[in-house]
Amino acid sequence: MEHYRQEFQPPARLLLGAGPSNVNPRVLQAMSMSLVGHLDPNFLQVMDDVADMLRLVFRTNNDLTLPISGTGSAGMEAALVSVLEHGDSIVVGINGFFGERIAQIAERCGATVHRVEATWGHPLDPEAIEAELKRHNGVKAVAFVHAETSAGVLTPPQPIVDIAHHHGALALVDTVTSLGGVEVDVDGWEADICFSGSQKCLGCPPGLAPVTVSPRAETVMQDRQTLVQSWYLDMTLLRRYWSGTRMYHHTAPISMLYGLREGLRVVLEEGLSTRIQRHTQVSTALKAGLEALGLRLFAQEGYRLPNLTTVRIPDGVDDAAVRSALMERYGIEIGGGLGPVAGQVWRIGLMGENATASSVLTILSALEDLLPENGYEIGRGEGVATAQRALAE
Amino acid sequence: MEHYRQEFQPPARLLLGAGPSNVNPRVLQAMSMSLVGHLDPNFLQVMDDVADMLRLVFRTNNDLTLPISGTGSAGMEAALVSVLEHGDSIVVGINGFFGERIAQIAERCGATVHRVEATWGHPLDPEAIEAELKRHNGVKAVAFVHAETSAGVLTPPQPIVDIAHHHGALALVDTVTSLGGVEVDVDGWEADICFSGSQKCLGCPPGLAPVTVSPRAETVMQDRQTLVQSWYLDMTLLRRYWSGTRMYHHTAPISMLYGLREGLRVVLEEGLSTRIQRHTQVSTALKAGLEALGLRLFAQEGYRLPNLTTVRIPDGVDDAAVRSALMERYGIEIGGGLGPVAGQVWRIGLMGENATASSVLTILSALEDLLPENGYEIGRGEGVATAQRALAE
Repeated sequence: MEHYRQEFQPPARLLLGAGPSNVNPRVLQAMSMSLVGHLDPNFLQVMDDVADMLRLVFRTNNDLTLPISGTGSAGMEAALVSVLEHGDSIVVGINGFFGERIAQIAERCGATVHRVEATWGHPLDPEAIEAELKRHNGVKAVAFVHAETSAGVLTPPQPIVDIAHHHGALALVDTVTSLGGVEVDVDGWEADICFSGSQKCLGCPPGLAPVTVSPRAETVMQDRQTLVQSWYLDMTLLRRYWSGTRMYHHTAPISMLYGLREGLRVVLEEGLSTRIQRHTQVSTALKAGLEALGLRLFAQEGYRLPNLTTVRIPDGVDDAAVRSALMERYGIEIGGGLGPVAGQVWRIGLMGENATASSVLTILSALEDLLPENGYEIGRGEGVATAQRALAE
Repeated sequence: MEHYRQEFQPPARLLLGAGPSNVNPRVLQAMSMSLVGHLDPNFLQVMDDVADMLRLVFRTNNDLTLPISGTGSAGMEAALVSVLEHGDSIVVGINGFFGERIAQIAERCGATVHRVEATWGHPLDPEAIEAELKRHNGVKAVAFVHAETSAGVLTPPQPIVDIAHHHGALALVDTVTSLGGVEVDVDGWEADICFSGSQKCLGCPPGLAPVTVSPRAETVMQDRQTLVQSWYLDMTLLRRYWSGTRMYHHTAPISMLYGLREGLRVVLEEGLSTRIQRHTQVSTALKAGLEALGLRLFAQEGYRLPNLTTVRIPDGVDDAAVRSALMERYGIEIGGGLGPVAGQVWRIGLMGENATASSVLTILSALEDLLPENGYEIGRGEGVATAQRALAE
């Protein structure tokens, strides 16, 4: 019998990978509500509510703030394609998989990409970015990843944004993994475009990509000589549907926007600073617990992402075997390594609903069970005990 | 107090516009299920199930069959951008708003667009398309809309597909509004790419765009000299995530895919031919009822879309006043005219869950109430009675 003849019943999962994380039941309930039309006054109000709350979460007054109807990478492409024209040049900071993706998309936009790389596990070097800006005239934008989920690294954005502006370039910041879990301060940084995703610290399912655009970046978009090469991701068109004239562009993903509206309400009810503090606290406990087990963290100290921890897989331990056992025996998903660190690191996310003491103790307990079976001897209980102490502080 | 502080409670709506239509409760329930990861074996099975069922609904064996993570227009752009390279040429049949959109997107792909227009309300003329193909050498593709929702017109696809092939061009067909409600026969037609949307006759929320690609079109994609200018909509990359290697591309919109899986199950349980017959039957009744009220249908007889009826607004009747009253007093949404027919036609959709006798009688009753108030005298009851007779046949 064909498999699709049966109703799908998802197994219970604790999603401690790089996203999606588990979703608040209020969000799932909102998504199951009956539809209204995409030009219904009630839906236009939903759009306004979402934009208003996104401004609070991004900490910005940017008028052009909306969720792209696609996943996080669609937000990345919308930002790049709406700014870049053929023949433009861009400096891209690359210290992981997603910085690489920025470079790839920028090239597809017909831009000349000047790469400034840092070793995976390390933050970007603002001086290297400045040096690159000095080497080339008329660079239109500098783009980089705030929270590089592939490496578990946080790059402080302020110095790079300042350098970009000093050289007359826009600053584009990937905040996919940081928004809602790590401090993001769009207006404070004076960042020009930040893009994000719904499925990380905002605690919603994947499918929407919040983007915010400064007036300066909007002017750049308006002053383009050529049309944006993508119609679907053209922010100058999307702007008309999301504000003022409500000009029909595409049919918005109504249920997803119901969900994002409720997810943002959950974020604001908790309070942004409380939420960020929660992510930091549980992350500190997780990292302490992992280190107590003798595991080594991958990212450079001082630049470790709170909400996603990269840990080196001990020598001789089989990556796939441990991750499979975690999923099959405990229902826990953690992330494997991407690209050059595949098989070398695990990525443990504590995001949104899952940034809890309970998640920390659960994953540490499970690892304490599984690692000895996989040839890595540890003092059972030490990780959990250490994390408990950290959580009590 | 800010509006978003309140929970959103959608008003009850009978969605008889151009889509979205009302969604089957099973689909909404599926969307509210807990998440698994986008690389979880259970989710990979969901993807396979969706692809298998899409092949049945499209009536194709095309291996490359998947839903794009965006709304219908994203599917349109994915089809065009994955085929077209800068300097290519394409013939676009245009008999409404969405044919125009194809032309706009193709231009943004850097293609030379040869337009073949038909008056809104009329089908495309295959001979005119053939004449255009004869005028230009090496045209890469012919693209047109099967079910033009802006005008309520169905263009028979077979002659145009045959002509395209005769001239060595691919045939790209917009089946956004037809799939699941009107006969779509991808392999029978030998169409090369068909793209659609989840929110019309498939009865799901907007947010996914099913696309199917023939082996011939796949070869064209593989033989490209340049990279697809969009990374997000590059079907050669998407193929790797949806089949064989499962190479991570973007994080799939998991909940939406749960919904589409259940929606396709609903379609197949009813049976495609039964479902299409249902759409035809209720549409015939609606059209008869509208004509019995003295209203004139906009689309040319013989080419009227079953699932979306365009009707001329009688002289002197205020478009907005009637549509507002329909919504406020009856909770019914119908569509207004787009572009050149704005203010001149209404668009009444009977799609998916809403293709029912009950919808027909409800909208006719409401119009019988409202039109006299708005200065158009009709024989009250005649529309409903006529439709009832048609439904009984």
